[in-house]
Amino acid sequence: MNELDWLKIKQMAIMWVKEASNQLKASLVETIRVETKSSPDDLVTEMDRKIEQYFLRKIQAHFPNHAFLGEEGISGEEYKNRDTIWIIDPIDGTTNFVHQQYNFAISVAVYHKGEGKVGLIYDVMNDDLYHAMAGDGAYKNDDRLERLTPVDIDKAIIGLNARWLLYKKKANHLTMIELVDKVRGVRSYGSAALEMAYVASGRLDGYVSLKLSPWDFAAALVLLKEVGGCYSTFYGESLAILKSSSVFVGRPQFHQKVIQKFVHKELKS
Amino acid sequence: MNELDWLKIKQMAIMWVKEASNQLKASLVETIRVETKSSPDDLVTEMDRKIEQYFLRKIQAHFPNHAFLGEEGISGEEYKNRDTIWIIDPIDGTTNFVHQQYNFAISVAVYHKGEGKVGLIYDVMNDDLYHAMAGDGAYKNDDRLERLTPVDIDKAIIGLNARWLLYKKKANHLTMIELVDKVRGVRSYGSAALEMAYVASGRLDGYVSLKLSPWDFAAALVLLKEVGGCYSTFYGESLAILKSSSVFVGRPQFHQKVIQKFVHKELKS
Repeated sequence: MNELDWLKIKQMAIMWVKEASNQLKASLVETIRVETKSSPDDLVTEMDRKIEQYFLRKIQAHFPNHAFLGEEGISGEEYKNRDTIWIIDPIDGTTNFVHQQYNFAISVAVYHKGEGKVGLIYDVMNDDLYHAMAGDGAYKNDDRLERLTPVDIDKAIIGLNARWLLYKKKANHLTMIELVDKVRGVRSYGSAALEMAYVASGRLDGYVSLKLSPWDFAAALVLLKEVGGCYSTFYGESLAILKSSSVFVGRPQFHQKVIQKFVHKELKS
Repeated sequence: MNELDWLKIKQMAIMWVKEASNQLKASLVETIRVETKSSPDDLVTEMDRKIEQYFLRKIQAHFPNHAFLGEEGISGEEYKNRDTIWIIDPIDGTTNFVHQQYNFAISVAVYHKGEGKVGLIYDVMNDDLYHAMAGDGAYKNDDRLERLTPVDIDKAIIGLNARWLLYKKKANHLTMIELVDKVRGVRSYGSAALEMAYVASGRLDGYVSLKLSPWDFAAALVLLKEVGGCYSTFYGESLAILKSSSVFVGRPQFHQKVIQKFVHKELKS
């Protein structure tokens, strides 16, 4: 496929995202039936499934050879053998969605032979679309995002869920505590996709989570690559796009310095 | 003074807040000179001083008998003897202001003989004004805020800065950790005034800080009182409006339950 094909795919994806967001907004005026998954923090709503089905149908109709990976499952068992895969989170920040009706996002990524081609993160209630196509730059709505510049650790504001400071059974909770102690500030908005879009657009300098799924971070990586942002597991290893793992993204140099200063020390001790 | 006088004061305060916000927005397109105060997290900008002076001049011109309390100091040494006092934070969330150009607020309160009469919290970049007058209800822009209803602890989303989980020398960091472990979610937006306005408007169920100054919480208490929100120190003691202290605000019942379940246990042990 050439660049024009990817541009067409991106435009269709944007259209579907906007249509899906209208369904989400309409549902917020109705009562939402909620069921809990593994923890109270991990809600999945009727709308989560509905929007996932919406994307699945659209992709199957327009790109029958493309695979689909989402929170509720994957399309077909042979998805790993297909060249092109859509990785979608219909509602990133489900707790915000049901509880705050605010700060949730639709995240859509298209990867081809393991490479991120299209990434969209749509902040539904603020009507802010973060979008990127490989080699074409990243944008927030109509504004092209600037390339990210380095920042010192003690000047950095990072996104991080306070829960990662609690888990005493995990060795890395001490690393997290040390990191929080050294940066200028910590924020938490309750949506991994949005927080990584904030990194791509400079509102945050970094974002870290000890466990994310592909649909949480696939689109963000496409955005970050276009602005020179760095990403890896929290241990500095390459991210596998079809596997859950820790994720750490950030400004250039800042990303490497944090891993050197905090994580490598932990690994040595 | 009667209700009409307070309404007039509220209207003037809103006018000044809007004018001050225009100055802030204009300054964001210029370079901001920043100097650090006690810590890198506690920035004060040229604009902080400029806006404080703006309010001070306005109040002195229109209400020469009113006292003024702000981050940069107080007007006169006899302020405690004056009946009416303005308590103002020109930029709540200074780090957000300089770093994110987003999620900062102007907080203005007017107290009379120790009682909150007017409270305004203005989310400058989102153009959201949270406002209340004693006995007249609280509003977000033109919408009257509903009275807050109870919520269970394990269903609650609270605002809390991750830093409060670190300070091992403070006995209450363990209480904080237990609280974070039990609630459904934790958010952190970097502006105490905004986070308490979120509690008043139902976006958060509670907010806790181990140290706030009067100008951080004075306006929020006026809003919270109007919607039946509860507030105290983190130990359940009454808040003194002219003293820095810990602050814990939240939905009715939820507020009391948290103090009973977590804080009283700590005090006993």
